[in-house]
Amino acid sequence: MTKPTYRIGIDLGGTNIVAGVMNDKYEIVAKFSTPTLADRPYTEVVKDMAMAVTEAMKEAGITLDQCASLGIGSPGTCDSAKGTIVYANNLHWSDVPLREELNKYLDIPVYISNDANCAALGEVEAGSAKGKQNVIMVTLGTGVGGGIIIDGKIFSGQNSAGAEIGHALLVMDGVLCTCGRKGCVEAYASATGLIRMTKEKMDECPDSVMHEITAKRGHVSGRTAFEAQRMGDEAGDQVVKYYVRCVAEGLIDLINIFRPEVIILGGGISNEGPGLFDPLRAYINENCYGGLKTDVPGIIPAVLGNDAGIIGAACLSE
Amino acid sequence: MTKPTYRIGIDLGGTNIVAGVMNDKYEIVAKFSTPTLADRPYTEVVKDMAMAVTEAMKEAGITLDQCASLGIGSPGTCDSAKGTIVYANNLHWSDVPLREELNKYLDIPVYISNDANCAALGEVEAGSAKGKQNVIMVTLGTGVGGGIIIDGKIFSGQNSAGAEIGHALLVMDGVLCTCGRKGCVEAYASATGLIRMTKEKMDECPDSVMHEITAKRGHVSGRTAFEAQRMGDEAGDQVVKYYVRCVAEGLIDLINIFRPEVIILGGGISNEGPGLFDPLRAYINENCYGGLKTDVPGIIPAVLGNDAGIIGAACLSE
Repeated sequence: MTKPTYRIGIDLGGTNIVAGVMNDKYEIVAKFSTPTLADRPYTEVVKDMAMAVTEAMKEAGITLDQCASLGIGSPGTCDSAKGTIVYANNLHWSDVPLREELNKYLDIPVYISNDANCAALGEVEAGSAKGKQNVIMVTLGTGVGGGIIIDGKIFSGQNSAGAEIGHALLVMDGVLCTCGRKGCVEAYASATGLIRMTKEKMDECPDSVMHEITAKRGHVSGRTAFEAQRMGDEAGDQVVKYYVRCVAEGLIDLINIFRPEVIILGGGISNEGPGLFDPLRAYINENCYGGLKTDVPGIIPAVLGNDAGIIGAACLSE
Repeated sequence: MTKPTYRIGIDLGGTNIVAGVMNDKYEIVAKFSTPTLADRPYTEVVKDMAMAVTEAMKEAGITLDQCASLGIGSPGTCDSAKGTIVYANNLHWSDVPLREELNKYLDIPVYISNDANCAALGEVEAGSAKGKQNVIMVTLGTGVGGGIIIDGKIFSGQNSAGAEIGHALLVMDGVLCTCGRKGCVEAYASATGLIRMTKEKMDECPDSVMHEITAKRGHVSGRTAFEAQRMGDEAGDQVVKYYVRCVAEGLIDLINIFRPEVIILGGGISNEGPGLFDPLRAYINENCYGGLKTDVPGIIPAVLGNDAGIIGAACLSE
């Protein structure tokens, strides 16, 4: 028998299940997507996960015995050791024995981790941080998620309950966060935080071009202030500058604590490019502990997009 | 030849060099202390470190070939891999090849780490967190120091430049920290921060008993507000309550990010006992991510005092 050279990764989301087959060059050679329909019993969802894997393997023209392992990136808190989902809000799951259930359909080693961790691992194994061992990935989306890679492996704390880097403090007694605490990084550095700041500034500044942009686009988004800034709008510029400082201060904490080789930024806001990255790097160089006398980690964009989670899941191991 | 059963630890401080001989039960069987006199060339200081080791061994009745290794806990930033001190402000050292220099006198494997890391390792190997693998020690002293133990080993980031947990943010744009950044945990949760808060409150409240306590003791200290609180003083109570919240919020960040098994508190302020620990634990239980639905780490006092650093240094390895 030849050694199995493929690995399977599943990105389990609140909306879709995406299964991918990865070859030994970390390329996804086949993918199959099916709706999660999270309101069903979990047993039904897991059945469809197995089906998606089978379909993806069919497309790739391989069989299960050519696959070394199957990894799952799940939302919420996962117990990687036990192979269970402890709690996942947007799947309505708690204490789901995911590995055991999936093994009923597919006889293969199953590994589970949080989706943010998988995305970070994917970028380290095959993306923007290839070859690095100590990396943090921060996702600036609806919330602020994060994955921490130490010595090439996912770090997620006791019972996988750590790595909640969006829920570190930026401003004690500050803006209320979705987690119930006041002043978390997420309440400021997320797209949601940026939209809040944009709206507040628009109320203050009725002459800002942000009103026109919003009228045209139909709603305030994480792009509104950046777009206004590029048009020379003073109010937009102020929003972006403050937002960038919030992100930078959050990243500086991660640098002072972890001193990774690089920090990868993902999520919608990271698409702003140099308008975000240039002032961010300048601020961090000036304000992280020890400043430029130390090795300040690079701040780089993620490159794998949604595939990062599948690749990272496929790379999971004991 | 019998296997060497002793290990040597050196606590290298700005004031004193303390060398200790540790047996295989993690007991310090002999200690020798000599002034650092940090204004001398580093070669002179290292010579005295070797002398202190020799004297400690003499007192223990052993020779160097009975010792497996020598570890040094140094202030500042150490490059553990290279065996150098990158920068240590209170020794006036930068880029000192400490291992190489010490090996001129003592032919033994030499390991180096930051003193806060060594204290944490000491408490894990032989103190309050014995048997635990994932532990953070936070020292509430003049500054806020910290040591992070992951999987039983010191974690200090790339080039040992991380683990600066006192220089994570508590209040963006807050009180200026000694590191140059505004709003670091250290600026609030250190004894220095507590003394500042105490003085501010005393200026506000001329009737507070804190004025009498200060007159008696000669100066405002980290104990003033705690003492006043125990005497039923409203102003003292307010200071303690705010200070406890600052420490708690800093610890919650560490829990949300690292989710360790326990957090050890050391340093002068940790001697306040239940007046500090009880409200601290209550606040953390209520406010850490996931609250009491998750395993909230215990918050426990350090037990080894100054010996933690020597024991931890002696426990250093590759």
